[in-house]
Amino acid sequence: MAELRQNLATREWVIIASERARRPNAYVELSDRPRTHERPEHDPTCPFCPGNEELDLERDRDPATGPWTTRVVLNKYPALSLEGALARRFNGVERSITGVGHHEVLVEHPFHNTTLALMTDEEILAVLEMYLRRGLVIGADPRVEQIVFFKNHGERAGASLHHPHSQIIGMPIVPGDIRHRIEEARRFFDDTGQCVFCTMVADELARRERLVAVNERFVAFVLYAASSPFHIWILPRQHRASFLHVDRADLVLLAPLLRDVLFRLYAHLNDPDVNVLIRSTPTKEPENGYFHWYVAIVPRLSRSAGFELGSGVWINPSLPEECAAFLRGDMDGS
Amino acid sequence: MAELRQNLATREWVIIASERARRPNAYVELSDRPRTHERPEHDPTCPFCPGNEELDLERDRDPATGPWTTRVVLNKYPALSLEGALARRFNGVERSITGVGHHEVLVEHPFHNTTLALMTDEEILAVLEMYLRRGLVIGADPRVEQIVFFKNHGERAGASLHHPHSQIIGMPIVPGDIRHRIEEARRFFDDTGQCVFCTMVADELARRERLVAVNERFVAFVLYAASSPFHIWILPRQHRASFLHVDRADLVLLAPLLRDVLFRLYAHLNDPDVNVLIRSTPTKEPENGYFHWYVAIVPRLSRSAGFELGSGVWINPSLPEECAAFLRGDMDGS
Repeated sequence: MAELRQNLATREWVIIASERARRPNAYVELSDRPRTHERPEHDPTCPFCPGNEELDLERDRDPATGPWTTRVVLNKYPALSLEGALARRFNGVERSITGVGHHEVLVEHPFHNTTLALMTDEEILAVLEMYLRRGLVIGADPRVEQIVFFKNHGERAGASLHHPHSQIIGMPIVPGDIRHRIEEARRFFDDTGQCVFCTMVADELARRERLVAVNERFVAFVLYAASSPFHIWILPRQHRASFLHVDRADLVLLAPLLRDVLFRLYAHLNDPDVNVLIRSTPTKEPENGYFHWYVAIVPRLSRSAGFELGSGVWINPSLPEECAAFLRGDMDGS
Repeated sequence: MAELRQNLATREWVIIASERARRPNAYVELSDRPRTHERPEHDPTCPFCPGNEELDLERDRDPATGPWTTRVVLNKYPALSLEGALARRFNGVERSITGVGHHEVLVEHPFHNTTLALMTDEEILAVLEMYLRRGLVIGADPRVEQIVFFKNHGERAGASLHHPHSQIIGMPIVPGDIRHRIEEARRFFDDTGQCVFCTMVADELARRERLVAVNERFVAFVLYAASSPFHIWILPRQHRASFLHVDRADLVLLAPLLRDVLFRLYAHLNDPDVNVLIRSTPTKEPENGYFHWYVAIVPRLSRSAGFELGSGVWINPSLPEECAAFLRGDMDGS
């Protein structure tokens, strides 16, 4: 029998479709496209490879002291424009805001043929530190209400360039989708006096069956109500609403856990297309007891169709507990 | 400058990305995959072609009186199971409901190589009448809270079989996504005393620039805040919350308008992958003044990436007004 599962934090439902269930190893990427580590280390046509630094907004090392390991540029085709005033226009059905904001690209590594899964802990730490530095700069812009940090790896995840990079968008609105999540978290807090994410951390640590990796400050698990196969959250064990308020010790411990989880996906599923994103509270909302920042990892192994569009409910043809065991190496997935 | 636009009814924001904007004809499907009308009329391996009627739940004509034009079967790999009691289990982070419900497939036509865009008005009417008949049967099940009618055409829309078919899922919950839309519509009604969808109909009819097709009972337009290129709604001009309460005269006039809009997409964009779905009020909620059923048409011409996952905001690299003019034939789209 199929099962509908609800995410305790977001209250979103998912259908775990046991009638069409596939074992974890059914998701191993079998196409013959080159895997990331099989590409050339340098591509002379790539705008993110070394040699194209003239438009950098920021770089982690002064060129006088050695080569960069991360750098940041404006997106060449920005979704939002840096210049301009925030103006609302409400006229009948037409409600708009000028598209002002920030849209930056963070080049994660000088090498063309790597990705977070294959980097060292120190290299990932450099990426996370650059997320934080740019987040603080963008968050200081009074027009910005919400920052989204995200990474598209592979074509099905929406990437158009292979070179390892992330994007940071600062928007002049708090989208409804994020507002709904905050409202649900606040409702849980009103009912229980607890942060729903802290509750999930404690519960997943006690149950263990969906855990992928754990250290002193972070816990990674396949979601009980995973909306797609191998849908993973990495939650900080310490309560904090905003990613912009992390300390360096957090990033030092997030780096190896992120590497561990992404390497397991890379190795076990053969370099799957994947999105990685950081969810955080709106920039102008203070630290609070109910929201909690986290990293979401969404391998793109299934496709949304009319049902997902029409209901907001995803059909997940895998068992989260089996996916977690497969990534831990407890089972062969067959 | 880019623009953020808000859908008046759903209050969802979309970024109309003028910096990366493409003209409507940039979305013409150029791959050399066979178009629907180029496939064979009958495929002996297809389970939906004539000759596989033994498992039919329903058929629009008794075999004694002639061949069927539409028929309905249970989905072979149902997302939800027909048998079983509705049972909730709430245990810490684990909140689930047994996956009971309905998951039917509506075979729309005996021919393998057709699709709604290519059918006659009478054939489409037969499909719509079967939607309604099955909807009434499924809605009478006391376990069902929400019915989703949807069609996946083409691989990017999630279709795994070419034969023209729709699916109907009856769920034992009202998903959060649908609940949020109802709440927004009710809020608009509280503020204005008007149905927000009726307001959109009046406004789009007055402005005309986003209209695609109109008749006495329906209006089809590209959404002002289209989340992707050629995102179209067909709204009934008469207020009604539930599709299950339409009368036959509605369906008689919906059929030619649906055909007209889908044929324009088929002809102008070269048989694009597309989802079609009917949104309607939850089955147990009475007719009311604030919600309004409609048909949504979503060609799958762009891809969601990490930003959409992380924000719920879509980036649409096309201008809705240009897409509407292109479908009307007012511009060549170049």
